[in-house]
Amino acid sequence: MGKIFSDKEYLALAVAEAKKGTNRTWKNPLVGAVIVRGGQVLATGHHHQFGQAHAEINALNHLVSLKQARGATMYVTLEPCCHTGKTPPCAKRLVAVGIKRVVIGQLDPNPIVSGKGVALLKAGGVDVKIANYPMVINHAYNFFYRHKRPLITVKYAMSLDGKINRENGVRTLLTGAAAWRDSQKLRAAQQAILIGEHTLQVDDPQLTVRQQILRFPPIRIVLVRNVNSLRTDLALFKAPTPVWILSQTQLWHRLPPQVQVFVANEWTPQTISALLAKKGIQSLMVEGGSYLQAAFISQNLVDQLVVYMAPKILGGQGLAAVKGALLPELIDFKQFTYQAVGADLRISSQRED
Amino acid sequence: MGKIFSDKEYLALAVAEAKKGTNRTWKNPLVGAVIVRGGQVLATGHHHQFGQAHAEINALNHLVSLKQARGATMYVTLEPCCHTGKTPPCAKRLVAVGIKRVVIGQLDPNPIVSGKGVALLKAGGVDVKIANYPMVINHAYNFFYRHKRPLITVKYAMSLDGKINRENGVRTLLTGAAAWRDSQKLRAAQQAILIGEHTLQVDDPQLTVRQQILRFPPIRIVLVRNVNSLRTDLALFKAPTPVWILSQTQLWHRLPPQVQVFVANEWTPQTISALLAKKGIQSLMVEGGSYLQAAFISQNLVDQLVVYMAPKILGGQGLAAVKGALLPELIDFKQFTYQAVGADLRISSQRED
Repeated sequence: MGKIFSDKEYLALAVAEAKKGTNRTWKNPLVGAVIVRGGQVLATGHHHQFGQAHAEINALNHLVSLKQARGATMYVTLEPCCHTGKTPPCAKRLVAVGIKRVVIGQLDPNPIVSGKGVALLKAGGVDVKIANYPMVINHAYNFFYRHKRPLITVKYAMSLDGKINRENGVRTLLTGAAAWRDSQKLRAAQQAILIGEHTLQVDDPQLTVRQQILRFPPIRIVLVRNVNSLRTDLALFKAPTPVWILSQTQLWHRLPPQVQVFVANEWTPQTISALLAKKGIQSLMVEGGSYLQAAFISQNLVDQLVVYMAPKILGGQGLAAVKGALLPELIDFKQFTYQAVGADLRISSQRED
Repeated sequence: MGKIFSDKEYLALAVAEAKKGTNRTWKNPLVGAVIVRGGQVLATGHHHQFGQAHAEINALNHLVSLKQARGATMYVTLEPCCHTGKTPPCAKRLVAVGIKRVVIGQLDPNPIVSGKGVALLKAGGVDVKIANYPMVINHAYNFFYRHKRPLITVKYAMSLDGKINRENGVRTLLTGAAAWRDSQKLRAAQQAILIGEHTLQVDDPQLTVRQQILRFPPIRIVLVRNVNSLRTDLALFKAPTPVWILSQTQLWHRLPPQVQVFVANEWTPQTISALLAKKGIQSLMVEGGSYLQAAFISQNLVDQLVVYMAPKILGGQGLAAVKGALLPELIDFKQFTYQAVGADLRISSQRED
């Protein structure tokens, strides 16, 4: 018999297990599970990919024999599900195989599960403990169900004097290769990314995630006045992953099949957020330009700010990182984290809730 | 007999000794000296204050008996002086007391000493080693003699979106108490600080160093169009430490005795730097506002940038940290250092030379 660890320590192990699914579970949360009996870890499991088996089931499948589950404790980072979605309900399965005790990191904020998974376990005679373990995973998932809209990140590279470009209409390469790789990772973790028309025209970006093949790449969203004015040879249209165009006019001509057009008389940060909420998009990164970022900031629709700061000065005529919109009062993030990325510095700030 | 340390280790000790004079040696460099014989540290000394004895003499004075100097090695962070200034030349004194070997951290960049101190020692039969020890002290002193102008620091507090004020004419308190204390330390280390007329009018600052009594506080310089337009009840005039006013017009009325007025048809970063160079001012900090800072930046007259970054967003209408002047090309500092100060972040960037 091994050393007896605390519930907290087993949950930490379950969280580490959960993280193995990073960038593959898409709209599903990362979940990890650990099965323990007599102080011994019998099996671990995690949710591998959106649409596939849940962590609890994977952990059970990793037992040498399913009989081992009888009388065991399962540590699971998130409340086991109670509904038949893409897979049968986990809570029922845990009862069926004789799991005696379930320690849950956090309740599922998704209303179709929340509390119901626990109720199902308890009804099946399982001893349930909700640990309220501090979760370092699933920020966007939790945020989405708590606030009924995506977690919105604003990201830019900035000089020491707060500028993003030397002059309007010309792209200045501020940050180095390490910052670029880091920002690609940040992009890979989003369900959607958004740019404005000016950035689309000046940068002609592909907005894909380089360096890794993603099963669920972020939807590439562009905000334009008139979808019909877009050149069809944009780099954006060359990659096959979904593109959403938010336009004020109907589409009259043909665009590639991965492109979807949404039309409204006016697009605001609120209506964009509402559209994404309706589509179940849990995270959005606004990548530029400075007027679009200012619009989100002025509407207080920014939950996380990521600044890549370069040790450079662009000078007084440079384009401000955030430009245009009036802010009724300053947004106080209270704290930030920072880390060197190559010669640059990444500064991240989150709201406190 | 103690453990024999290396020359480098004794020089490190001398540097630590030198630092004891911080903020008191004014236009003189910090200097530390260590006297060693038979592996034993017999005495240490440092330059305490501008106008007082040099480090070498203080170290000699700390010997139990001056006879101990005979045959000993002196480690000194800077080349001993060769001229009679406020004190007699140290090099001669070292020869006279029989110091056998002198290990020098760096040559004195001041042309009235440079190399001549070494020559005097050698002529006296002393074995001299110039260690070219990496100096972490006397940045401004070294810079001044190398470049024939003051080391210019630009300092500002900035939001995450690169703004220093919510709107023009209103002061926004961005950073916290720890950043304020830190910036006071930075100010205390300067020989002069400079602000523009707009900052003078909006902030009505005293520009003194709070928290510590300085023997040689920084000269408070303000750049104005017309010195006669200044209100005589400005906070600036209340403190008794020197004020220099750079004006385009002659002074017609009386100002307090600590105030000196310099007149030129036009003041530019170059002419300001030239005036300070002529006056022997080795370090200048440009504290604001954003147009003045931009002027120095656009003329590439910024050697060090210190940014206090607050975890706040001011939004698109906020006043840019650096505003106004066109920069011919971006200034690339290549690297920076950063440190948390309370809830804020201090980012410092220096030129590489």
